[in-house]
Amino acid sequence: MKTRAAVAFKAGTPLEVVEVDLEGPRAGEVLVEIMATGICHTDAFTLSGDDPEGAFPAILGHEGAGIVREVGPGVKSLKPGDHVIPLYTPECRECNFCLHPKTNLCQSIRETQGQGVMPDGSSRFSLDGKPILHYMGCSTFSNFTVLPEIALAKVREDAPFEKICYIGCGVTTGIGAVVYSAKVEPGSSVVVFGLGGIGLNVIQGARMVGAGKIIGVDLNPGKRVLAEKFGMTDFVNPSEVGNVVEAIQDLTGGGADYSFECIGNVNVMRQALECCHKGWGESYIIGVAGAGQEISTRPFQLVTGRSWKGVAFGGARGRTDVPTIVDWYMDGKINIDDLITHTLPLDEINQGFDLMHKGESIRSVVLY
Amino acid sequence: MKTRAAVAFKAGTPLEVVEVDLEGPRAGEVLVEIMATGICHTDAFTLSGDDPEGAFPAILGHEGAGIVREVGPGVKSLKPGDHVIPLYTPECRECNFCLHPKTNLCQSIRETQGQGVMPDGSSRFSLDGKPILHYMGCSTFSNFTVLPEIALAKVREDAPFEKICYIGCGVTTGIGAVVYSAKVEPGSSVVVFGLGGIGLNVIQGARMVGAGKIIGVDLNPGKRVLAEKFGMTDFVNPSEVGNVVEAIQDLTGGGADYSFECIGNVNVMRQALECCHKGWGESYIIGVAGAGQEISTRPFQLVTGRSWKGVAFGGARGRTDVPTIVDWYMDGKINIDDLITHTLPLDEINQGFDLMHKGESIRSVVLY
Repeated sequence: MKTRAAVAFKAGTPLEVVEVDLEGPRAGEVLVEIMATGICHTDAFTLSGDDPEGAFPAILGHEGAGIVREVGPGVKSLKPGDHVIPLYTPECRECNFCLHPKTNLCQSIRETQGQGVMPDGSSRFSLDGKPILHYMGCSTFSNFTVLPEIALAKVREDAPFEKICYIGCGVTTGIGAVVYSAKVEPGSSVVVFGLGGIGLNVIQGARMVGAGKIIGVDLNPGKRVLAEKFGMTDFVNPSEVGNVVEAIQDLTGGGADYSFECIGNVNVMRQALECCHKGWGESYIIGVAGAGQEISTRPFQLVTGRSWKGVAFGGARGRTDVPTIVDWYMDGKINIDDLITHTLPLDEINQGFDLMHKGESIRSVVLY
Repeated sequence: MKTRAAVAFKAGTPLEVVEVDLEGPRAGEVLVEIMATGICHTDAFTLSGDDPEGAFPAILGHEGAGIVREVGPGVKSLKPGDHVIPLYTPECRECNFCLHPKTNLCQSIRETQGQGVMPDGSSRFSLDGKPILHYMGCSTFSNFTVLPEIALAKVREDAPFEKICYIGCGVTTGIGAVVYSAKVEPGSSVVVFGLGGIGLNVIQGARMVGAGKIIGVDLNPGKRVLAEKFGMTDFVNPSEVGNVVEAIQDLTGGGADYSFECIGNVNVMRQALECCHKGWGESYIIGVAGAGQEISTRPFQLVTGRSWKGVAFGGARGRTDVPTIVDWYMDGKINIDDLITHTLPLDEINQGFDLMHKGESIRSVVLY
């Protein structure tokens, strides 16, 4: 079949919206009509050429929601008409990662996904007979796309695509880090470094589970109002305090129970660790640092009881947990609406990247 | 009263065995006759002058066992005749650390303990009218010493002092890291960097809880036989493999479930983290690095699911857990006898330091 898609033909150039060829689903695969997709920093990172694993031409996009239109042989958990959210972290429920209680990083199709192809090693997309690569196993910048069954979370049908698409990445990354990875307890003190989309979702996750003090740290004082709306109780501007770590220790009576780095800055990662409370503070790295950069600290920080951890996709097992997060949204437990600041048609997708680079959007969503 | 003690008059010089004055226990304090004490690297570290917190003159020693001889006003949990192990990490059961479920680092007397004095700010030791400092709240290199009630674990009376004194530091530090901090599950793979006294105790802790593969890493092939006796299943000599991390990944099918650094080398700490399994591997720093040294890694190591942690005194809550470890020894679940390679009278205590520096002892114990 034919489908419209925004194609990244090469690094560093805008996407081009063209009609591409899409082969139907093979065994274990599912054809999905994408109804909406967010534009994420990760898409921009790959498009920029800075992503060492980036390959072109490819159809980017990994934060979508849509409807199953066709299933390949052997697909049992989905049928045409089902509403789904694509999962760049799949959940096969069979690999040693899925069967391990401490991780969500299903590895069953990781190698091919990283190569931009389906698990059988081939691409379903092509243009003029030449293959176009998939991206993060999703390629939601195409109106229709093919995914493995294990990379689709089935969600309720009354949830609006243009909102729940954000659960495919940013919402789950932030809220999940609090709920599934850190398992923040009610009354805990939480510090969030970086009040972008991820940071705001960490904040509302902390509020949802009943955290006590929720401290946001950002150089931009303009972030304060929205962060407070999402549950931030205290704001620290590093440019206004002499020492961020000490400022947080003062606010928390010795250090935070949990901290989350949502920027990707290795120096901030160190502050996030060191502002944690002696004895039990846990710091989670969410942000993605530049290639080759390293974190460091004195081992004394760990020997005296702080833990340094990281989290990807919020520690969520997508097929299991994403439907629950959709429920939280529909029940009003979390706020997505105020995070989606712009909607665009596919033809204007590059404007969405511009808004992100200018810092004018929290999240732009493409509506098909 | 008078008591014989090995006094560290200044950094970098041998201890001197002299008779010092010891004041009796004040409120909340206990007079203990030390029956045996181990000589630990930490004592040597302080004596060397490298310990930035070291102060002199002091009576070192923190790994003892003895008998309560007198209790001060208000002491309720101990009485003369009780057998006890001094605790450099006390357990007051009242501070916010003791009441927190994730830490053993009781802080109730930390400040004065660090200053080498009792909680009321004064020393019980003196010589010619001038105070001599306490050390780590224990000063077990004195035949009689005074400790706070909260810094004494009451233990069974049939346990031999010359063995269980080692539970006051090394045994608990190693076994506790496995049992109380990491909570290693049966069948897990465990890697231990450094096969000295701490490392051997980590190994036997791992064996006790039913770990599967227990890999020891040491540059000295001579460590192999004893380590195997304690439960090591595989040995890696870094000088014989091209890459320690890869060698461990090969042995464990992708990485270790748990690793423990028992050396104090920041480069080894990095290897210990990076040899852990993606998704769930946890690395614990036990060794004490030199002042100012830092650990580093790529944040990707954490974002892909490894955790970097540390542990002091094996995560044990001394008054609660040390008696249990004594039981394990008396029940034959752990081996202490083979770790105590030398015993000495107090007059020969400096020979114990020499044996340690030459690598000829696992543990030397002074018998009073």
